[in-house]
Amino acid sequence: MLQPVKEKIILGIDPGTNLMGYGVIKVVGTKASMLAMGVIDLRKYEDSYLKLGRIFERVRGIIDSYLPDELAIEAPFFGKNVQTMLKLGRAQGVAMAAAMSRQVPITEYAPTKIKMAITGNGSAGKEQVADMLRRMLHIDKEEMPHFLDATDALGAAYCHYLQMGRPTVDKGCSSWKEFMAKNPERVKK
Amino acid sequence: MLQPVKEKIILGIDPGTNLMGYGVIKVVGTKASMLAMGVIDLRKYEDSYLKLGRIFERVRGIIDSYLPDELAIEAPFFGKNVQTMLKLGRAQGVAMAAAMSRQVPITEYAPTKIKMAITGNGSAGKEQVADMLRRMLHIDKEEMPHFLDATDALGAAYCHYLQMGRPTVDKGCSSWKEFMAKNPERVKK
Repeated sequence: MLQPVKEKIILGIDPGTNLMGYGVIKVVGTKASMLAMGVIDLRKYEDSYLKLGRIFERVRGIIDSYLPDELAIEAPFFGKNVQTMLKLGRAQGVAMAAAMSRQVPITEYAPTKIKMAITGNGSAGKEQVADMLRRMLHIDKEEMPHFLDATDALGAAYCHYLQMGRPTVDKGCSSWKEFMAKNPERVKK
Repeated sequence: MLQPVKEKIILGIDPGTNLMGYGVIKVVGTKASMLAMGVIDLRKYEDSYLKLGRIFERVRGIIDSYLPDELAIEAPFFGKNVQTMLKLGRAQGVAMAAAMSRQVPITEYAPTKIKMAITGNGSAGKEQVADMLRRMLHIDKEEMPHFLDATDALGAAYCHYLQMGRPTVDKGCSSWKEFMAKNPERVKK
């Protein structure tokens, strides 16, 4: 009897307020390949609502084009200052809302976790992550993007794929839900 | 000849990660009245995505029920710590995305600005704001909500109404709609 081959499409997103990266991978059985990656350039919009509106539209557009089963989002938990984090939170929130409006489940990964999952080193540089992804997903050098926000996003998707396949999920790579459950003191009451 | 009476519905929102307030006012000519106010209790959802998803759904639901012309959002720009601001930013982003997905223009007001507009004192207490709104909008005492997040949201809507009527709008208070009207080249076709 034929075994049905499991197929899954994962959208990775690295939300920023200036450049937002995205990467889409397709997993068939245990084999992953890249479907698309790129950046949404938000620098031309001075107005923050236009930026947010553009994130919402573009993320929805990517979801409608590739119909991902899951969204993996690169999400730093800490940042330099409250202003930056508020803006980042808004960008993340808008991207998440785009996924929610299409019933796509969301998983967050801290940047160090993504680096660790892909290169084996939590403090690897963006170039290292990009190079590793290029080899693992057999991407031509010419196809590599100018902005590393795109490979960061692809890395989030690939990290999610690696997590999926493993029966025991690494502690640090758990979702926010798990993070909060394990770190109740860090959750705002 | 009869002059057409200008009618406008304003939705005010005070987004929080535990309680999210909303208030809807109707402006006919220069007269404002309250259509609805309340809170969305998010404390029962432990999972942050459920909270965000609920904010998105409920804000969309309120928009679909009252068809507001504008959204006024109470948005603190500063907070205690980066974690809190990231979460607040996400809640704001999701609420904003709900409005964007229904093409409702957004205007933000800092809490001090709302307090100042309503009570004449930027550091007024929530009770003072609530009491002033009750008088100005002729709300029965029995109708006043238990949670002041609702009156805070109503305050945002009322502040927006007060701003609208003034020929010289404070720069920080301009709406998305206005922005787009003034900057047609920056709007995606």
